[in-house]
Amino acid sequence: MVNLSILTIGDEICIGQIVNTNSAYIASKCTALGFNVLIHSIIPDKKDMMIAELDRLMGLSDVVIITGGLGPTEDDITKATLCEYFSDKLEFHQPTFDFLEKWFSSRGRIMNDLNKSQAYLPSNCKVLRNLHGTAPGMLFEKDGKVVISLPGVPKEMKYIMEDSVLPHLKEMLINKKTDMMLFKTIHTAGIFESDLAILIGSKSNFPEECSFAYLPSYKGVRLRIGVNCQNIEEGHKKISKIESYLLDKISKYVVGTDSDDLVLSVSNKLRQKNLTVAVAESCTGGLLGANFTNYSGSSDIFKGGIIAYSNEIKIEILGVEKTTIDTFGAVSQQTAVEMAKNVRDKFKTDFGISITGIAGPTGGSPEKPVGTVWIGIADENQVFAKIYKFGEDREVNRERSVGAAFTMLFEELIKMGK
Amino acid sequence: MVNLSILTIGDEICIGQIVNTNSAYIASKCTALGFNVLIHSIIPDKKDMMIAELDRLMGLSDVVIITGGLGPTEDDITKATLCEYFSDKLEFHQPTFDFLEKWFSSRGRIMNDLNKSQAYLPSNCKVLRNLHGTAPGMLFEKDGKVVISLPGVPKEMKYIMEDSVLPHLKEMLINKKTDMMLFKTIHTAGIFESDLAILIGSKSNFPEECSFAYLPSYKGVRLRIGVNCQNIEEGHKKISKIESYLLDKISKYVVGTDSDDLVLSVSNKLRQKNLTVAVAESCTGGLLGANFTNYSGSSDIFKGGIIAYSNEIKIEILGVEKTTIDTFGAVSQQTAVEMAKNVRDKFKTDFGISITGIAGPTGGSPEKPVGTVWIGIADENQVFAKIYKFGEDREVNRERSVGAAFTMLFEELIKMGK
Repeated sequence: MVNLSILTIGDEICIGQIVNTNSAYIASKCTALGFNVLIHSIIPDKKDMMIAELDRLMGLSDVVIITGGLGPTEDDITKATLCEYFSDKLEFHQPTFDFLEKWFSSRGRIMNDLNKSQAYLPSNCKVLRNLHGTAPGMLFEKDGKVVISLPGVPKEMKYIMEDSVLPHLKEMLINKKTDMMLFKTIHTAGIFESDLAILIGSKSNFPEECSFAYLPSYKGVRLRIGVNCQNIEEGHKKISKIESYLLDKISKYVVGTDSDDLVLSVSNKLRQKNLTVAVAESCTGGLLGANFTNYSGSSDIFKGGIIAYSNEIKIEILGVEKTTIDTFGAVSQQTAVEMAKNVRDKFKTDFGISITGIAGPTGGSPEKPVGTVWIGIADENQVFAKIYKFGEDREVNRERSVGAAFTMLFEELIKMGK
Repeated sequence: MVNLSILTIGDEICIGQIVNTNSAYIASKCTALGFNVLIHSIIPDKKDMMIAELDRLMGLSDVVIITGGLGPTEDDITKATLCEYFSDKLEFHQPTFDFLEKWFSSRGRIMNDLNKSQAYLPSNCKVLRNLHGTAPGMLFEKDGKVVISLPGVPKEMKYIMEDSVLPHLKEMLINKKTDMMLFKTIHTAGIFESDLAILIGSKSNFPEECSFAYLPSYKGVRLRIGVNCQNIEEGHKKISKIESYLLDKISKYVVGTDSDDLVLSVSNKLRQKNLTVAVAESCTGGLLGANFTNYSGSSDIFKGGIIAYSNEIKIEILGVEKTTIDTFGAVSQQTAVEMAKNVRDKFKTDFGISITGIAGPTGGSPEKPVGTVWIGIADENQVFAKIYKFGEDREVNRERSVGAAFTMLFEELIKMGK
């Protein structure tokens, strides 16, 4: 197997100021190609540590991908450090300078000296163009190993990955002819991790050797199958044998595989059946709609919704009866039912979905503690609502409410038949 | 300084299936206490690698915090590996068993054998109770160094951090009497990183030695100041000298400090002035509302909104004139203006904010390419809209639209005077 490690440079990541989404992106892309992603390491913008870590990771891996520290400001040291590490020197790079001139003028901005310094690059690296920003990527080769340096801005990093890095790595893997790992993910919903594990039983009974993992999320438990293989065809065969074995045991909880997670599966089912949805959101404040519209093409199935955060909006805009809220409360079965029914009527959609709950940390009571959420669904034949009792954490309650709403809708779509 | 490293165990993180948010949380909490967070490392669920990495990190740091691999299923190996590493054995732990019994019965669930196995814990560790899940944390001490193992589920990890780990680490730091790092973040909006850097100039002119970093985000560029100090008072003094120096140069772009980011600053300003907001969202599909309601107490200032994803909803529910959309298009100044004005009227709020744009990847045209977004604001005296030209990436366009809407609202609030 060809080992790959990811080195993230940045004080802001070390001290936890921002979450490192880059290394997950790089890892998933390289895993999909067949690389064995060995280690992710995050260190501060410190030259000595960077050199030591580069030595260590180059010892353990064939490829090291570095992100971060390529900006124009004083705190960015990656370019200079790599230059020193590979005994190279910075040279003026005309194509980069030309691109920068165009970049700034098309934006009506003046190029300052810091910006100009970004056109100086190590003379022996392969420059990886960056059409989405001012810092190009760099590719170094040494003793048959590859070191790639990319900017930390996710959009720019992703552009260079797609444009130059992944094609280069694919080529490299084809030339190496070694065994590889292949993965498949099965998304489930509506069942707990340990109950799923009991249904599935021990891995030792699986029809093929594999790595197998349970990954809980707010939208359900994902199962990941990984197999070792000589090529992609062999890997797919092994995986599909394991998948059939699992589906025999847990098919009623399976919502999709790989990129078809709960949200996409629900969206695709709606699209196939030509059905539309509108949402009425209280405690989630728009998060359910934001999830529906996360994917391109959602306008086929999602018409919109009403964010009814206050009671007066629930009454005046969404048309919930004032007596319903006065009698049962805003967080109640009755309110959830009216919200779902009314948004469906107003938006003339096939489904209306409502969420009303106490996200916390305040607003709870002994009868309705923080984490109490009612979710309603209305279609042409019925309207109903279910209660959920989540926990104390506001963010988790909002995310789990969205997950539960999608799960309920998924179950309704299944009941309607494929 | 007391060095701390964070070790994340999990194939799912290594292969990039999920983003590692835990280590950012742990790092930010420990940095705030005064620890020097040295390294974050992510490795697969493999015993040999875990033991080797534990050796390395214990050599470099005084404290190692491990997350992940404590679940009840076969793929979770952290507990057994730590038991072996510390030459310990698993023992039945009555308090954990009692808690698990209560946990399952209160949820109407039957405890299975996998669940029961979670009550067996290394005999020499300090058990850290977990009231939010079934896997307790563990604290080991060896040669004056501390190793802490926590579950990977964020909610559970956070509970144990707050309940046991942070109090323990705080105590440890008080007893050590060493120098520490202290940080402060300044949030800016409406200015590019390199322009900000030119205004600020070189760090060598700062009134105090410090580490200084520029951190761009979709909601603006953050500036992070870090100072070395003997105690918290000295650190605060140094930071406030640097802060004054910076504010002299860039005050008009500063929206808040530390946890007062753009969203919270806008929310607090609205609350101080007793003003309310409603939103009308097209391409962001609810994301602006979700951002407003991310924080507890948002019901004071946020009344709700209309997600008008389709043109018919813009016309029928939001009351945009059909001729406006027919003449100028859904993504136009005129539509944005009507959306902002109408949602303000309907929701009887002080501000109406609208977003209509082409998030992509499809739907662009030569005149209105993907990334074209109009954002409107209406208040009692005026209504206007501004055009933004973002890029190709759907997710980035949605996030940047939200950031731009908050920035516009911040600027309006400033114009109204403090």
